[in-house]
Amino acid sequence: MTAVTTGTTAQPTAIENPYYTHEFHGDYDLISLGEFALEEGGVIPDLQLAVATFGTLNAAKDNAILVTTWYSGTHQIFRDVYIGPDHALNPERYFIVVVNQIGNGLSTSPHNASGANAGIAMSNFPHVRIGDDVRAQEQLLREHYGIDRLALVVGGSMGAQQTYEWMVRFPQKVRRAAPIAGTAQNTPHDFLYTQALVEAITSDPGFAGGNYRSNTEVEAGLKRHAGIWAVMGFSTEFWKQEVWRALEFESREAFMAGFLEPYFTAMDPNDLLCMAWKWQRGDVARHTGGDLAEALGRNESVARVIPINEDMFFPVRDHEAELELTPHATIRVVDDLLGHLALFGVAPTYMPQIDQYLQELLDSPA
Amino acid sequence: MTAVTTGTTAQPTAIENPYYTHEFHGDYDLISLGEFALEEGGVIPDLQLAVATFGTLNAAKDNAILVTTWYSGTHQIFRDVYIGPDHALNPERYFIVVVNQIGNGLSTSPHNASGANAGIAMSNFPHVRIGDDVRAQEQLLREHYGIDRLALVVGGSMGAQQTYEWMVRFPQKVRRAAPIAGTAQNTPHDFLYTQALVEAITSDPGFAGGNYRSNTEVEAGLKRHAGIWAVMGFSTEFWKQEVWRALEFESREAFMAGFLEPYFTAMDPNDLLCMAWKWQRGDVARHTGGDLAEALGRNESVARVIPINEDMFFPVRDHEAELELTPHATIRVVDDLLGHLALFGVAPTYMPQIDQYLQELLDSPA
Repeated sequence: MTAVTTGTTAQPTAIENPYYTHEFHGDYDLISLGEFALEEGGVIPDLQLAVATFGTLNAAKDNAILVTTWYSGTHQIFRDVYIGPDHALNPERYFIVVVNQIGNGLSTSPHNASGANAGIAMSNFPHVRIGDDVRAQEQLLREHYGIDRLALVVGGSMGAQQTYEWMVRFPQKVRRAAPIAGTAQNTPHDFLYTQALVEAITSDPGFAGGNYRSNTEVEAGLKRHAGIWAVMGFSTEFWKQEVWRALEFESREAFMAGFLEPYFTAMDPNDLLCMAWKWQRGDVARHTGGDLAEALGRNESVARVIPINEDMFFPVRDHEAELELTPHATIRVVDDLLGHLALFGVAPTYMPQIDQYLQELLDSPA
Repeated sequence: MTAVTTGTTAQPTAIENPYYTHEFHGDYDLISLGEFALEEGGVIPDLQLAVATFGTLNAAKDNAILVTTWYSGTHQIFRDVYIGPDHALNPERYFIVVVNQIGNGLSTSPHNASGANAGIAMSNFPHVRIGDDVRAQEQLLREHYGIDRLALVVGGSMGAQQTYEWMVRFPQKVRRAAPIAGTAQNTPHDFLYTQALVEAITSDPGFAGGNYRSNTEVEAGLKRHAGIWAVMGFSTEFWKQEVWRALEFESREAFMAGFLEPYFTAMDPNDLLCMAWKWQRGDVARHTGGDLAEALGRNESVARVIPINEDMFFPVRDHEAELELTPHATIRVVDDLLGHLALFGVAPTYMPQIDQYLQELLDSPA
């Protein structure tokens, strides 16, 4: 990568990060959508989506499932935990397409913006919205796979935000939808929580306004970011009952140092911030001048809203409030002490619940 | 104040902070206990407790109520919100003694350690425990007022930690006890939450290892500290329902900038850290080799445990778990959307509940 200079100011350039590689993430394809205009006015000169698929698209092209990714997540967790012949997301029956969200480090992201995207590397990366991800996904599915209608859209957390965006933006293209542990309109509390995460990173002097040379220079900030996740990502009971012992750690400190901190310190700060900005502003009511009821009223899919009972920042009641505004939707609550990060599927009782709720949904006419 | 040098290393000295003055806190007395040895091994050469009293001690000296203070709190909130002829804490009937906790900025604290205490200023301040506060309070009440038994000990949050410490350490001296929104043994989640608060401050380059020259040099860290309080101190519903409008703010941002941020940026970082260290380690089971049931079993007071239903970090169930181990104790849950910071008494429905529960307790034989 070559530094481009404009006048006397060095432009930031993409940096290497070994976490965002096939070594860590296995097989996935980079599929180019070319120039992509963003809702906030920016442009990605060559948007590349990292896509992992499982199973085979049938001739009728009606067995496709779209899986969307969460903050810090990639297709890897779905491949390893959610998808398989023993799961509702069964590649022997469905063609499952996991699309890594823009900015997640595998798709086009601040840290990897090079070549045609060199001008938007690092601190120059434009703001991206949930709606941009969903438009890109729709274009990908239509142009690349010829898929016009999805048997199911499913995702957790920010993946739920994308699922709701599909329900409202492309109602005729979604037969079934399963937003897990996430809302259609981000809450003020969630905004503040995400802001605390953002500031843990940006306050690190090593962040250098986004133009650090390696994520390791922001390690202290990323560790504080992990520390705030520890407070909100798990439930109070997770810590009290020392559920981390089931993960074979001997102390809370060892769990932090061996699990949550390395999980985040491997990642790119600008990529996390790109996703955080999106998360904070997820809101389907942007389509209806702020009228959430009108927006959710556009849903035509059969929907299962799936909150987690111990979630500290996407609490059940926030899902219930939106459920009342969403036609064709029912709710199933996952019982899991881990709280929001139950999404990792660590508890042996988690996936059986998810599989049951998704299977019910897939078996229902739509 | 004069800088003392030892060899070539400048010793930190006390600093001025206009917040911790009579101008902001009204009348209180500084009462010296002289040299005070701390449980962790340190010594305060001249421990001065800032004490505000209301009402008159009767001849039998059996109408005394001790009020303990919370993290960041002083006697001011009790004077202005909790104490008065229309409240259960009625100075026309009781002699009410509010003792500011060690390190809160009014009693001997890192930022004000001068004179005999000059050697423990700022980063040199020793670790203090909840037990130190309670021993100091007991000594103060006995030596200064001749009080051997309390009609009631009451406090919220860290004040509840002190209340439990009284119940276990001095069971014969406590006739009634009312821990509000706090536990006898701090939880792991609370430890992590407090740690996030601590790191928001210590990560600020202006903190300079605790030897800043003014709290204003740590403003950025104190604002992030306020931002984390915003996430955990209030409930998700507080933000969703925009309860801050009742405080006459026009936006969430205005509420942060006009209320929560200035509340904390006025304070001293080392003082907050002194209290945070205590908070993280509050544990009455230190008296019984770690056996919480045995410790709480020592309680002889009639106790009302008073959690707040929307509290995010001292949740109701943590109170219920300890209630089962505490003889003579019953529970009353406060209904308040503000969550933990309901303690500020902002909601018009808060004090009526507190008054009812405390009045029931004060009216009960003990």
